[in-house]
Amino acid sequence: MIMEAARKGQITPEMEYVAKVEEIDPQRLRRLVASGRVVIPKNISRDAVPTGIGESMSTKINANVGTSKDFIDMEEEVKKALIAVQYGADTIMDLSTGGDLDEIRKRILKSVKVPVGSVPIYQAAQDSIVDMSSDDMFNAVRKHVEGGVDFVTIHAGVTLDALERLKRSNRILNVVSRGGSFTIAWMIHNEKENPFYEEYDYLLEIAKEHDLTISLGDGMRSGCIADASDRSKFMEFVTLGELAREARSKGVQTLVEGPGHVPLDEIDLNVRMMKRLTDGAPLYLLGPLPTDIAPGYDHITGAIGGSVAGMHGADFLCMTSPSEHLALPTVEDIKEGTIVTKIAAHIADLAKTRERAKKRDDQMAIARKNLDWKRQFELSIDPERARRIKCSRKSKSDACSMCGDLCAIKIIQNALRREI
Amino acid sequence: MIMEAARKGQITPEMEYVAKVEEIDPQRLRRLVASGRVVIPKNISRDAVPTGIGESMSTKINANVGTSKDFIDMEEEVKKALIAVQYGADTIMDLSTGGDLDEIRKRILKSVKVPVGSVPIYQAAQDSIVDMSSDDMFNAVRKHVEGGVDFVTIHAGVTLDALERLKRSNRILNVVSRGGSFTIAWMIHNEKENPFYEEYDYLLEIAKEHDLTISLGDGMRSGCIADASDRSKFMEFVTLGELAREARSKGVQTLVEGPGHVPLDEIDLNVRMMKRLTDGAPLYLLGPLPTDIAPGYDHITGAIGGSVAGMHGADFLCMTSPSEHLALPTVEDIKEGTIVTKIAAHIADLAKTRERAKKRDDQMAIARKNLDWKRQFELSIDPERARRIKCSRKSKSDACSMCGDLCAIKIIQNALRREI
Repeated sequence: MIMEAARKGQITPEMEYVAKVEEIDPQRLRRLVASGRVVIPKNISRDAVPTGIGESMSTKINANVGTSKDFIDMEEEVKKALIAVQYGADTIMDLSTGGDLDEIRKRILKSVKVPVGSVPIYQAAQDSIVDMSSDDMFNAVRKHVEGGVDFVTIHAGVTLDALERLKRSNRILNVVSRGGSFTIAWMIHNEKENPFYEEYDYLLEIAKEHDLTISLGDGMRSGCIADASDRSKFMEFVTLGELAREARSKGVQTLVEGPGHVPLDEIDLNVRMMKRLTDGAPLYLLGPLPTDIAPGYDHITGAIGGSVAGMHGADFLCMTSPSEHLALPTVEDIKEGTIVTKIAAHIADLAKTRERAKKRDDQMAIARKNLDWKRQFELSIDPERARRIKCSRKSKSDACSMCGDLCAIKIIQNALRREI
Repeated sequence: MIMEAARKGQITPEMEYVAKVEEIDPQRLRRLVASGRVVIPKNISRDAVPTGIGESMSTKINANVGTSKDFIDMEEEVKKALIAVQYGADTIMDLSTGGDLDEIRKRILKSVKVPVGSVPIYQAAQDSIVDMSSDDMFNAVRKHVEGGVDFVTIHAGVTLDALERLKRSNRILNVVSRGGSFTIAWMIHNEKENPFYEEYDYLLEIAKEHDLTISLGDGMRSGCIADASDRSKFMEFVTLGELAREARSKGVQTLVEGPGHVPLDEIDLNVRMMKRLTDGAPLYLLGPLPTDIAPGYDHITGAIGGSVAGMHGADFLCMTSPSEHLALPTVEDIKEGTIVTKIAAHIADLAKTRERAKKRDDQMAIARKNLDWKRQFELSIDPERARRIKCSRKSKSDACSMCGDLCAIKIIQNALRREI
């Protein structure tokens, strides 16, 4: 029970580890964990790498993998998880909806050392969305937790109250969260409140047994620019804030998830409101995507939104892949999406914690000054690609083929030495 | 003389055209042109598409093409210009430094209809950087202007005063602007002031003859995060502001160029200071790049910086290609860089002029709601890529293969209709 230990003044081995990685005083980290402003998602029955997410931590990134009903290839999903970790994913979420879900989850949990998350309602709803019972929902959570997942997304903020706001809104796309849509379909059909909201205490009990971290999903996230930052969404923020507080009071670590499609100038507003309404809970963002018109490039629009969100305080960025809105991603898509999201997280960190993050940039600048290509490749976020581009079009000079001997760096050094 | 006409109260055909494209009152545009807050770069001896750059205009993008000493292939450079325009470049700059520069420039000017820019000092310095005379410099400008280029970059802000600040600074990379480094090398070797600064009036006279737009280059732009937003750079901003005012007073349209490598949280500061110090001159930014460690992905880091810069008021974004810092770009690099920069400009416009820019996003949202894939492709920034991804991994359902029948959009529509 990491949070309880922190409150008792104990610095657990996980906190020691995270404090070292994050270059932060262990006592300060302990206080952040105790207050819920930092989470270290780690199921007691699995030995995940301790990973600090939240205030004063470097920005973390998650990669989603998982089958769909159309494409079920377990080996492929394991490959995706492995390549994501190789290129810097701090956590993996298994969002499988097709095939033997238990087996796939088991394989992914075995394949990677980083914290693994899941969305249990996908499994509960596998046979029928509207006919699942509330027991099915909680049993799915229990099954995932017992199997070792370190965090689960639960759409507990999708309530009858939120549904009412949705009906009063004039959204174009209503709900684009898969779990959110399942929950709403269930509530309408069964004319009942969301069980995860109504029996939230029971959920927290299950979580406590394995020190599971709850990621409060945002079922009402906006699916297009027109639907962003509206009353439906802010209503849900309010509920998620209350739920986060409730979880903390029981010693359960909580993340809060956020939108969605948001114009660039409203990301600041969303992130700051979320932090405010959740008393500084660690924020986990999908995107945000600041435009709707770039299918095929949504890893890039996600990186643009993610950089800005991170700068304003988002702690955890979910990778978007180039096939978002179009198809189940390939292994190559996951690699590309992970790298680009890693760049966004680093850009955010340069803004958030300049001196710490910029050591690597400074080393790169020095390597550039020295025209030391080997070192430049080593310091690159993707050494292989940088080397391939450089070597495919070599210069006859020691500079690159963009400028050759007209390299500004060379000219200015010679000039300043009066050698020219 | 567009600016003079605007001041006399005349709405020229160029202004008519731009006002229509930009959906702005022609009288308002006329006032913006008269004050220098909007430029329409158009050499009187060339029939370029009238393109408004500046306040209240949509964010424009430029693509750089041109040979280097290592790779001289005229056809290739023409192809780059054409593909850039095809994917949305509003202007082209020919930055050739290798081969028959006159011929290449002529070919590019003939191949595209958009405004074309160049950097005459590259030609003046082709034989020797330090031995060129000030006549060589001005003659190069004259040659380019007479050949029809619509705007030229002139590094007139690189003065002995700026050099002094550079020497007092502790920059890692000193100067990374090619034209800036030529100028500094020349000044040190010849122990003289920059002729473009000293004889700026003469430059303005040449410009007036053909209604040339001057783009005041930022020779002191930062080449790494560590060098950003320093005294050398702000000293140059001050000079560029004075030079922009001087040009306006003579009826010469002026753009001001900006940095460089800048951390995300300082882009706001740079853009707003530049606008302030130049009395609202249209800002032309390369990048900005908010990290140094992503060679191979600098079209993406540039799009991240460009989106944020655009949101804060930058008017004109220069495309960065994936081979920036590594090699002369290929045709494919130019295509990729242009598309990604176009996305950045659109994201900026959504923030700057929401209602106007978001029409296309709203149409996309509606097409998504209707699962109308044909329309989604049409509205995409790169229809071909979107279609290819979708079709490579088709779903058995009418949704995409990410969710298939578990598509949130489908579920929620059915649920809200109580059909489930």
